[in-house]
Amino acid sequence: MADRTEGADLAAGVAAGDRRALARAITLVESGRADHRQAALALLGRLRGPGSDAAGRQALRIGLSGTPGVGKSTFIESFGLMLTAQGLRVAVLAVDPSSARSGGSILGDKTRMEQLSRDPRAFIRPSPSQAQMGGVARRTREAVALCEAAGFDVVLIETVGVGQSETVVAELCDLFILLLAPAGGDELQGVKRGIMEMADIILVNKADGGLEPAARRTMADYAGALQLLRRRPQDPQGFPKALCVSATTGAGLGAAWAEMQSLAAWRRETGHWDSRRAGQARHWFEEEVRQGLLAALHHGSARDRLDALGAMVVAGSLTPEAAAAEMLASLA
Amino acid sequence: MADRTEGADLAAGVAAGDRRALARAITLVESGRADHRQAALALLGRLRGPGSDAAGRQALRIGLSGTPGVGKSTFIESFGLMLTAQGLRVAVLAVDPSSARSGGSILGDKTRMEQLSRDPRAFIRPSPSQAQMGGVARRTREAVALCEAAGFDVVLIETVGVGQSETVVAELCDLFILLLAPAGGDELQGVKRGIMEMADIILVNKADGGLEPAARRTMADYAGALQLLRRRPQDPQGFPKALCVSATTGAGLGAAWAEMQSLAAWRRETGHWDSRRAGQARHWFEEEVRQGLLAALHHGSARDRLDALGAMVVAGSLTPEAAAAEMLASLA
Repeated sequence: MADRTEGADLAAGVAAGDRRALARAITLVESGRADHRQAALALLGRLRGPGSDAAGRQALRIGLSGTPGVGKSTFIESFGLMLTAQGLRVAVLAVDPSSARSGGSILGDKTRMEQLSRDPRAFIRPSPSQAQMGGVARRTREAVALCEAAGFDVVLIETVGVGQSETVVAELCDLFILLLAPAGGDELQGVKRGIMEMADIILVNKADGGLEPAARRTMADYAGALQLLRRRPQDPQGFPKALCVSATTGAGLGAAWAEMQSLAAWRRETGHWDSRRAGQARHWFEEEVRQGLLAALHHGSARDRLDALGAMVVAGSLTPEAAAAEMLASLA
Repeated sequence: MADRTEGADLAAGVAAGDRRALARAITLVESGRADHRQAALALLGRLRGPGSDAAGRQALRIGLSGTPGVGKSTFIESFGLMLTAQGLRVAVLAVDPSSARSGGSILGDKTRMEQLSRDPRAFIRPSPSQAQMGGVARRTREAVALCEAAGFDVVLIETVGVGQSETVVAELCDLFILLLAPAGGDELQGVKRGIMEMADIILVNKADGGLEPAARRTMADYAGALQLLRRRPQDPQGFPKALCVSATTGAGLGAAWAEMQSLAAWRRETGHWDSRRAGQARHWFEEEVRQGLLAALHHGSARDRLDALGAMVVAGSLTPEAAAAEMLASLA
């Protein structure tokens, strides 16, 4: 009973846009404890259910990818402050699969975005330090949903440039932005084609001072490369496109934001926004089913059976194929 | 009855080392047809079962990774010919996940290894053009088992430098070789740490003519980098190590082979060979179970249910989490 009241309070706090309530709610969805999981699902249900003020709220979800060194934190700081100055509320989340190994966190140090983290219209959430990719995806997805319920206008989902996490972010966001540093033309190959194909807008950062000419060349190179990609139905004329920005001087940030808004508006009008979100929901449904199926292997009698058959395989008394067939038959 | 005789004939052909029978057997394990799968499992069981001449045969399985341009085909050609000249029988297989998309095949063109492909002691098998990663892993694993049953002394498993396929190959081989081209010192970062950690021996190719000094520097750089890695129990003193070779002149190939043999012998004596193979068998058992579980989602009533729930998620009448919970409950 106390728990129910507590859950209702937390939901009300999140729906009212209270940042402390939001932080507590995210901690709840990140928890591995079974009772916390139940409470997290109840909270999400409450916020999205009929009668909730928060139901149906949608933020513009922007995925932001870029390898270390391209100036991602500085970009988020400048871009975020520009948006909050316009009265918009901005949340920043991180997807960092590598933190699972290093124990570190790409957003662990909020001082990287000192001003933004003190801005009352902003909410910055570091990546949790312990999680597997499946867990990271679920946690981030639910954190995004909580930020939307809390009425944030823009949710920035940051990731580092390693294949798998980009895929997760692409399935979470409405727009996918690739942030690059100025480089020699032949470094074009450093960006994987798959990541290029996800990008809606490529931003070449550090277009200031002595690096500006290089940034313009890099932008032109990528603009050319983007034209070689297959046309996607979700793009209006001229997209995907490449632009120059400087997170340090702020140059180009306004133009980049205008492009993002224009693309988002076009997709909303043409129905691509809704169909993308519907497709993402279907993806996450199937992913949850897959994760749940695999997780069940490591509990109760299935786990005992897996261990017993695994021991026979290790001992050489059963081939992997025969053992797998036996395991699958026992589960069917 | 005809099928049984045929299966027995095929098993006998493989066990006798007949290359055409081996090629037919690999085609069988690559097939997606259900009756072929049954026949493939029967064939593998026959070859590995008691009473089979082929039972217990072990090749030295060498995983070979290297990005395009390092001279992998030339290396395989020279290295393979050196081994066959010593009377050894050599099989070459490829793991190429990208071929699933491009429809191409890294070993599709046997003319890349013209002499080796005509050598009666060699067997070269291109990567199948259509497969998903799970399918590639199974197909390659079974093809390796068939090559062993056919009495090959060395099985080379080639892959390109993209993370996921390296992991598959590392779980299939006794030794993992990383082939590199000479490069500037700062290109060291181009090799992912995870792949470095898999390597038993790093070979810097093209150590001939004007590139030799660069190759020696690259070798020294990698030798230094390898020393920074955590010591692994499966390595004797001095391993993992970096060497220079030239696939064109043949320089260093004999020394590289001697190091491979010495490492393999040490691992056999110390039990690391057997425990690695046992661990791999356990890995493949669990992987087969996982693939089987996930595949079952897309058949029969499970598929219908997945589609029905997925449609409700797309329509917005059910959240992904609630739909997943319902799906999982129906499977339990």
